Amino acid sequence: MNLKIAVLAGDGIGPEIMDQALKVTRAVCKRFNHEATFTEAITGACAIDAVGDPYPPETHQVCMAADAVLFGAIGHPKYDNNPNAPIRPEQGLLRMRKQLGLYGNIRPVMTFPSLIHKSPLRADLVEGADFVCIRELTGGMYFGRPQGRSEDGNTAYDTCVYTREEIERILHLAYRFARQRRKKLTVVDKANVIATSRLWRQIAQEMAPQYPDIETDYLFVDNAAMRIIQWPRSFDVLVTENLFGDILTDEASVITGSLGMLPSASIGIHTSLFEPIHGSYPQAAGKNIANPVAMILSAALMFEYAFNLHEEGAAIRQAVNASLEAGIVTEEIAEGGKAYTTSEVGDWVSEYIDS
Amino acid sequence: MNLKIAVLAGDGIGPEIMDQALKVTRAVCKRFNHEATFTEAITGACAIDAVGDPYPPETHQVCMAADAVLFGAIGHPKYDNNPNAPIRPEQGLLRMRKQLGLYGNIRPVMTFPSLIHKSPLRADLVEGADFVCIRELTGGMYFGRPQGRSEDGNTAYDTCVYTREEIERILHLAYRFARQRRKKLTVVDKANVIATSRLWRQIAQEMAPQYPDIETDYLFVDNAAMRIIQWPRSFDVLVTENLFGDILTDEASVITGSLGMLPSASIGIHTSLFEPIHGSYPQAAGKNIANPVAMILSAALMFEYAFNLHEEGAAIRQAVNASLEAGIVTEEIAEGGKAYTTSEVGDWVSEYIDS
Ligand SMILES: CC(C)[C@H](C(=O)O)[C@@H](O)C(=O)O
Ligand SMILES: CC(C)[C@H](C(=O)O)[C@@H](O)C(=O)O
Repeated sequence: MNLKIAVLAGDGIGPEIMDQALKVTRAVCKRFNHEATFTEAITGACAIDAVGDPYPPETHQVCMAADAVLFGAIGHPKYDNNPNAPIRPEQGLLRMRKQLGLYGNIRPVMTFPSLIHKSPLRADLVEGADFVCIRELTGGMYFGRPQGRSEDGNTAYDTCVYTREEIERILHLAYRFARQRRKKLTVVDKANVIATSRLWRQIAQEMAPQYPDIETDYLFVDNAAMRIIQWPRSFDVLVTENLFGDILTDEASVITGSLGMLPSASIGIHTSLFEPIHGSYPQAAGKNIANPVAMILSAALMFEYAFNLHEEGAAIRQAVNASLEAGIVTEEIAEGGKAYTTSEVGDWVSEYIDS
Repeated sequence: MNLKIAVLAGDGIGPEIMDQALKVTRAVCKRFNHEATFTEAITGACAIDAVGDPYPPETHQVCMAADAVLFGAIGHPKYDNNPNAPIRPEQGLLRMRKQLGLYGNIRPVMTFPSLIHKSPLRADLVEGADFVCIRELTGGMYFGRPQGRSEDGNTAYDTCVYTREEIERILHLAYRFARQRRKKLTVVDKANVIATSRLWRQIAQEMAPQYPDIETDYLFVDNAAMRIIQWPRSFDVLVTENLFGDILTDEASVITGSLGMLPSASIGIHTSLFEPIHGSYPQAAGKNIANPVAMILSAALMFEYAFNLHEEGAAIRQAVNASLEAGIVTEEIAEGGKAYTTSEVGDWVSEYIDS
């Protein structure tokens, strides 16, 4: 198979962790006899610096022409406390999501036995937690219009909009995930208060009979925020709208103590995109100390979801587990034990795959 | 002082925990020489059953005429999975908030040393956590219009609106709380994406210089959802808009392991309202087993916030602490030790105050 991959390393630690994911991808291609073409493009703060646009048209063309996009991280401290800056890295992110039609963001939440002690939750609650958060990514308040200010500037408004097509598309995706897992889908909304949530719930209730093998249940978003902490093992697949998903997926990402290990996938109409859930971690940029595992596992998701190559994905996962067992880990995981550099971890994992 | 108190016991365990709060309130009045007039009124599912309206005009009159409202809980399982029912208990709640102008919901998040082991968080993270969540309660998506469906029913929309007045009012309230505490205010928004949040942040930045003794910081709501779990001690006062507040306050309420102990206050234009943060807990209704402490501590907040009677509030708090130390607790806290009934706990606390 010839794999056309767009490579958007982005800002901060993006480039150095991306290097490791590319090594690993090459090792997989070698072992399983695939060809890969990598095309690099700029995005984020570095693209603003270079061309004044966080998601330039050239970058969009590269993504559109690719079967999958590997994405590092974007963001720079100089934009952090200034949400009113005219051009900001996030705008590029949102435009990219919309223009590539990346409607479904998938975040597996899993525990690593060797990292459980880093979880902020009690080990007995979080051990064995294994669920997937699916967030609708191109609708809701993020893109609803009108959005803005009254003429005098003293009233602001946003609009949350969802159509039947958008809701059905993401729910079908969520049901397909549930079917391949423990067959339980939790639809999270605020149907007791808002109209868009009532449409979500109505459509979910209409669709549920099409998936008789799946148990569908419903949670209000405030209850979901509690349940993720109190009983994380009760979830299998959780699906929700864009803004609730933003909050809940971040909440869910910290309960396992392995933020630096968690990958994500964004399923799209034109292509799909794979990125670690952690950010650009500017303090570590250029130091060769950042943990590349989330980026490497994002490449595993790419093999599975974009190319339907499951053995290839599993090989990466297996290599990562072996590296953890062997203690080939970066400093924030080593905790006083021997720490390896970003590139050493990448080398070890890719050699493990290709040997 | 003559205290005019409206008593809305509501549904489920509401009436039996309310009885304990009233005993305690009477004991405080006796000890400190106040007169209290209690006027009961119906709300919630029981009001729908009685008169077809979860917040009848008579109940509103009773609240308007009172200096403070003690509120139990509302909700009944028959409404739980039917957000499309034409009349629902929550509608009464929202109407009550709007009509009484209850703009500021205050939820102290505190730990009880004897309950730390019930926290889903690691004890070392949550010990000593002590912060206040302030949620704007009469604006945002809960009340913004237009809200509804397209003619064909296949598109739904909600509107989030905030005005400068609404934002300034709640921020002033939050700053006043911070001033009486550890002098730190965290403003939570999503100013990198939505227009209402950008107005929140702009106004907060304008107001901060008026409170030079307070350190103001800003967090995006997704980061706040992580930080509440990872570092709860980093908060002093957190303020946010209605829907974010709904999610974050519920998340914050479970981290201490003492959901059954936590009171809340809703500060209003016409009156203010005090209620436990737990719900109507229908499974326990009528059994005299529910924990009345959150309701009793809500009465303490009433003395402090509605009547500015701080010694009186402190006396309740002290009595509750004494009851915990003496092991006079309901079954979910007793955990195998001797369990006391709802009314026994109420009796013990009120006798402690009045002796
Ligand atoms: C940076 C921001 C616009 C973005 C979002 O809110 O979607 C981020 O929080 C995320 O979850 O990817
Ligand atoms: C019942 C519901 C309408 C309500 C809300 O969303 O405000 C509840 O969750 C709360 O927090 O008091």
